[in-house]
Amino acid sequence: MEIFQKEINLSAKERGFHLVTREILSKTPELEDFKFGTMHVFIKHTSAGLTINENADPTVRDDFESHFNKMVPENQPYYKHTLEGSDDMPAHIKAALLGSSVIIPITHGELNLGTWQGIYLGEHRNHGGSRKLMVTITGVK
Amino acid sequence: MEIFQKEINLSAKERGFHLVTREILSKTPELEDFKFGTMHVFIKHTSAGLTINENADPTVRDDFESHFNKMVPENQPYYKHTLEGSDDMPAHIKAALLGSSVIIPITHGELNLGTWQGIYLGEHRNHGGSRKLMVTITGVK
Amino acid sequence: MEIFQKEINLSAKERGFHLVTREILSKTPELEDFKFGTMHVFIKHTSAGLTINENADPTVRDDFESHFNKMVPENQPYYKHTLEGSDDMPAHIKAALLGSSVIIPITHGELNLGTWQGIYLGEHRNHGGSRKLMVTITGVK
Repeated sequence: MEIFQKEINLSAKERGFHLVTREILSKTPELEDFKFGTMHVFIKHTSAGLTINENADPTVRDDFESHFNKMVPENQPYYKHTLEGSDDMPAHIKAALLGSSVIIPITHGELNLGTWQGIYLGEHRNHGGSRKLMVTITGVK
Repeated sequence: MEIFQKEINLSAKERGFHLVTREILSKTPELEDFKFGTMHVFIKHTSAGLTINENADPTVRDDFESHFNKMVPENQPYYKHTLEGSDDMPAHIKAALLGSSVIIPITHGELNLGTWQGIYLGEHRNHGGSRKLMVTITGVK
Repeated sequence: MEIFQKEINLSAKERGFHLVTREILSKTPELEDFKFGTMHVFIKHTSAGLTINENADPTVRDDFESHFNKMVPENQPYYKHTLEGSDDMPAHIKAALLGSSVIIPITHGELNLGTWQGIYLGEHRNHGGSRKLMVTITGVK
């Protein structure tokens, strides 16, 4: 078995949910060398998260943003951590709900995702900037 | 170290939370060969999720379903992705809240779960059908 | 590649969100031997969870507790699993929202976390007691 590790950057995105499968794959061509294994993608930030969801209809991403804004609203009276803006504390909570990593099986040099699955970046800040990901692939070549 | 990978199918389940530890184990006897490692179970769908929770009292699963329905209701005025039925968009969001994979330590050929832990399938569609899982075991034999 | 596995205990904590990076690291000095890899930390309980979030301002942890109590309230009329106290069923749901494990990249013998990231224990019971974690490290030395 072998391991491969690499830090990559996602370009800055506006607040919302974004399909980033292609952007991640274009920066990790080393994946093709692995016959079987898993790819661990970890986001090195606390106000953006990663998850896996529908890769087709873009309104799914819109509805995620609408519902997350309702489920974790800004300006709640009990928030104490408010100095960095009204989008900051909700961004931390949303990031924890999605999680900081996704792990995807690799089969014959490709991500073994379902037909309708893609990797989402949940960008929860109004101006989050570029986001750093650590990719760790473990498997057999 | 060695790696083992297999696709398995869970039988169709009604909407709700289901304990599937035994169904998964019965389809992955290869687990017994691993002395130490981890089992990654990945669901290849975007409207059902996996998590780990209480394996004893079945009302825990009922309460999960009731609360998820409250936390992510159907027919919200801001949903745009509505063509596939009122249960569809909430199913995507619920799936992301649970997550698409669980990773469980393996010790001496068995899942090293706590006494009260089991694997849950969160089936969020009214008629989700059979669900495909990819199991990847990494460890030493 | 090599694998290392160990069960560790976190000291009992009061209900709320706690930064436990240092406590975990102090009990897993074996991490330093791994050049590249991942650390899987798994909690063997169903009413406490693990996540990764901000390691600096402690009010972030306070706001997590306040918001989780609002998002998953006690004493909902639809809860059936109530025998173990009003904090019990919400604790199960909160644990599933956070997740039962975190996986963190290891680079040059250290957790490769972002500057502001730390490991949180979400202790959702009023009197949860000590919590058992299984740590599995996979990588190259």
